[in-house]
Amino acid sequence: MVSSLRLPSLTSLFSSPSILRPPPLLCRPHHHHKLSFPPPLPLTAAFSSQTTSASTTENPRKQTNQDQKIRGTMVIRPYGYAIWEAIQDYLNVKFKETGHSNMYFPQFIPFSFIEKEASHVEGFSPELALVTIGGGKELEEKLVVRPTSETIVNHMFTQWIHSYRDLPLMVNQWANVTRWEMRTKPFVRTLEFLWQEGHTAHANPEEAEKEVENQKQRHFAGADRTYTIEAMMGDRKALQAGTSHNLGQNFSRAFGTQFMDENGERQHVWQTSWAVSTRFVGGIIMTHGDDSGLMLPPKVAPIQVVIVPIWKKEDEKTGVLNAASSVKKVLQSAGIKVKLDDTDQRTPGWKFNFWEMKGVPLRIEIGPRDVLSASVVISRRDVPGKQGKVFGISMEPSILEAYVKDKLDEIQSSLLGRATSFRDSNIVDVSSYDELKAAITIGKWARGPWSASDADEQRVKEETGATIRCFPFEQPQGTKTCLMTGSPAEEVAIFAKSY
Amino acid sequence: MVSSLRLPSLTSLFSSPSILRPPPLLCRPHHHHKLSFPPPLPLTAAFSSQTTSASTTENPRKQTNQDQKIRGTMVIRPYGYAIWEAIQDYLNVKFKETGHSNMYFPQFIPFSFIEKEASHVEGFSPELALVTIGGGKELEEKLVVRPTSETIVNHMFTQWIHSYRDLPLMVNQWANVTRWEMRTKPFVRTLEFLWQEGHTAHANPEEAEKEVENQKQRHFAGADRTYTIEAMMGDRKALQAGTSHNLGQNFSRAFGTQFMDENGERQHVWQTSWAVSTRFVGGIIMTHGDDSGLMLPPKVAPIQVVIVPIWKKEDEKTGVLNAASSVKKVLQSAGIKVKLDDTDQRTPGWKFNFWEMKGVPLRIEIGPRDVLSASVVISRRDVPGKQGKVFGISMEPSILEAYVKDKLDEIQSSLLGRATSFRDSNIVDVSSYDELKAAITIGKWARGPWSASDADEQRVKEETGATIRCFPFEQPQGTKTCLMTGSPAEEVAIFAKSY
Repeated sequence: MVSSLRLPSLTSLFSSPSILRPPPLLCRPHHHHKLSFPPPLPLTAAFSSQTTSASTTENPRKQTNQDQKIRGTMVIRPYGYAIWEAIQDYLNVKFKETGHSNMYFPQFIPFSFIEKEASHVEGFSPELALVTIGGGKELEEKLVVRPTSETIVNHMFTQWIHSYRDLPLMVNQWANVTRWEMRTKPFVRTLEFLWQEGHTAHANPEEAEKEVENQKQRHFAGADRTYTIEAMMGDRKALQAGTSHNLGQNFSRAFGTQFMDENGERQHVWQTSWAVSTRFVGGIIMTHGDDSGLMLPPKVAPIQVVIVPIWKKEDEKTGVLNAASSVKKVLQSAGIKVKLDDTDQRTPGWKFNFWEMKGVPLRIEIGPRDVLSASVVISRRDVPGKQGKVFGISMEPSILEAYVKDKLDEIQSSLLGRATSFRDSNIVDVSSYDELKAAITIGKWARGPWSASDADEQRVKEETGATIRCFPFEQPQGTKTCLMTGSPAEEVAIFAKSY
Repeated sequence: MVSSLRLPSLTSLFSSPSILRPPPLLCRPHHHHKLSFPPPLPLTAAFSSQTTSASTTENPRKQTNQDQKIRGTMVIRPYGYAIWEAIQDYLNVKFKETGHSNMYFPQFIPFSFIEKEASHVEGFSPELALVTIGGGKELEEKLVVRPTSETIVNHMFTQWIHSYRDLPLMVNQWANVTRWEMRTKPFVRTLEFLWQEGHTAHANPEEAEKEVENQKQRHFAGADRTYTIEAMMGDRKALQAGTSHNLGQNFSRAFGTQFMDENGERQHVWQTSWAVSTRFVGGIIMTHGDDSGLMLPPKVAPIQVVIVPIWKKEDEKTGVLNAASSVKKVLQSAGIKVKLDDTDQRTPGWKFNFWEMKGVPLRIEIGPRDVLSASVVISRRDVPGKQGKVFGISMEPSILEAYVKDKLDEIQSSLLGRATSFRDSNIVDVSSYDELKAAITIGKWARGPWSASDADEQRVKEETGATIRCFPFEQPQGTKTCLMTGSPAEEVAIFAKSY
């Protein structure tokens, strides 16, 4: 039937036949690599069109990725962009509550700025897009299209920070950034992506460390230590969903960002930076999706409830549509994001499948009999088939509104619960390299004590395909011996295959 | 005194010693030039730091513009960015109410796209920033950093639009754009600026024209006709504050953006595009500011009310500060943007001048005597001195809240009223070239019938410095004769000096 709907099967678009659901794992990670965007997801251009296709558009087949002229860039269509806007709205409130101000820094950065911090230039040089011609003339100094803004931020901070009274200085910007990635996939790794980047300067290292932990390790080119959110996707691969860096004094020393402390002595500021990007949208999709398509958490769903009116004879149509639009008004005025799909171009069956694929949490069906009984049928996206379907919910505004809100909350926590238990049930504690290999072989994450060498880590990667994702905040008590060397270990690490 | 406050006098920063207040003039303009960013305002870097300095920053002297390495770019600091956010919040609601969806297009555009529409490439080529190196390699095709997105929008529209059922397609994006301007000034004309760009495609020209008029003429490279908002600044120069273009079928023919109409015939779509940018922030400042600094309309003010506590002896301090913070809570919970300036680093006098310069609409003063009488003193930014000062407003929450909200509304409409009458009183109706010259000489806008040649217009520009800003929507009745040639004229035009 799916094929008769002219909807592409999503199964083919994922690496694993079934996509289940897991949430982020907060942890402090590993020290040796720069923050790098993981290898591509097996998402096709068609999938990117699913996740981002405009709700104004009829044919889900349409592609949103561009031809090879602009390899690796992505058009974010309204449906996908609305998910990003929901993330922005949530974060903006949090950022402002915690004293951060939004502002904007120029995106062109003189190449000499990038060169000032040694590991920064080393880390980012291979990924830079360079403007060499402006207004028809060759530029004296190449301009870097920002891959991130630490350098220009410090250039400005040196002008704004003079005394301890100017600290902490805590800003955030919503911007586009560019990294010349060789292998790209929609939302997960694109040449240009959207993100927020927070930048803070503090008078002492303790305050900076606190800021970093409050915000969310893989290593960032120029950071002392980095925290990461490692999320388990439906195929049980790890996705780095966000990072928070303690920059120490690396950039403030490189740029001379100093302040006069309370004792009248000049000191370099301690800094942090942290970011989440449009990759988050990809993470949500790959965490909660299934074979029928997306499964969006109500809190980020562009459409929380879709109303599908059902009629056969013309004389039924008016009654059904009137009931449907009054139900729409009720929910809308309750602040619920609702869409009434009243086109007669498509069959109800086509609409059911289409909106399921779009991941709309709740579907309301209204047919002639429902109109007579002044009730509706409500189906949950997260509970397939009859179990997810409830008949005879009254159209009475207060009852309907309460029921829908309650169900949306239930779905939100149910998706989180499923994802969490999926994640936890797929992490195996290992005490030897053999156990680690066994766990990775069956597709799980391996958690075990680690104090071995980089060479050992490299060996694990070559032999299993897994890498150290992070050292979790929650560490087991007691003495630990390294799973590889048997010598004492301070912490357990998590090994997994990753995007 | 100002100097003792270490606040730079703003007077020196404007071209005219006093900045008064006028609002936008909506009109349909003139056909011969591309949309171009006007010549620089005489705003210094110090001024840009006034308008955008972070409220977290103590010293208003600090510069936000960058050194010449990044000539013409602008850092938008939190105070200025908050004005932009207020504009965004307002427009986003309007756009969505009228059926437009936000989305995002890549900022890198293959050079070949720009070349497809002849007048477009002619208009923009001199202003392009070009990426020629990516990931360390010379690119096969140069990439344009978007100066605007009509070309890539059409590239995508050809993939999304198939049938009349896909129309109208109405999208908007919030983005940064780059135009390699030779002479730049903060907010008014910068190498990179932020804007919203609306793009719509329609099944017929009438619908497209309606869309253009609903949105907001100077000519845009590639447009059939363009509407403009020409705003009169305090120095009575014109500022183009927004444009709306009817693109006709120019881009759809260039890119082959076609649809199947109801009769099964293929047609090219009719398109519009429209934009307002961060220049709007500059327009607000130059419209309402005066010698003491900014004067922000309450609806866009990042801080609507500032509370300045006043105490001499230590034993007064606690009582005053307690009263001040409870007043703050009352206003905050009423949804008013309020700041309590309780630092003891500065004198009340310094604070009065500082927040006046920042353009905060209302100031609340609370001293020991006010605490005793449970009342406050409230001063209006838009009414200088004693006339703007009211004593003995009760601290009783309901009374205080009602009073403040009422005053904010009053200030909002008062600023609009002043600006409107300032504008209207500075437009002179002229019927001859001599009258036109006389009007321009005394710094006014000249409005008169015009049907003369481009050569004549050029002569006016050379002899008076004024150009045709637009042809107003409101046209006088009756027959008109061209002020220059005496031959019949269909419309009156407005001539003015402009930014």
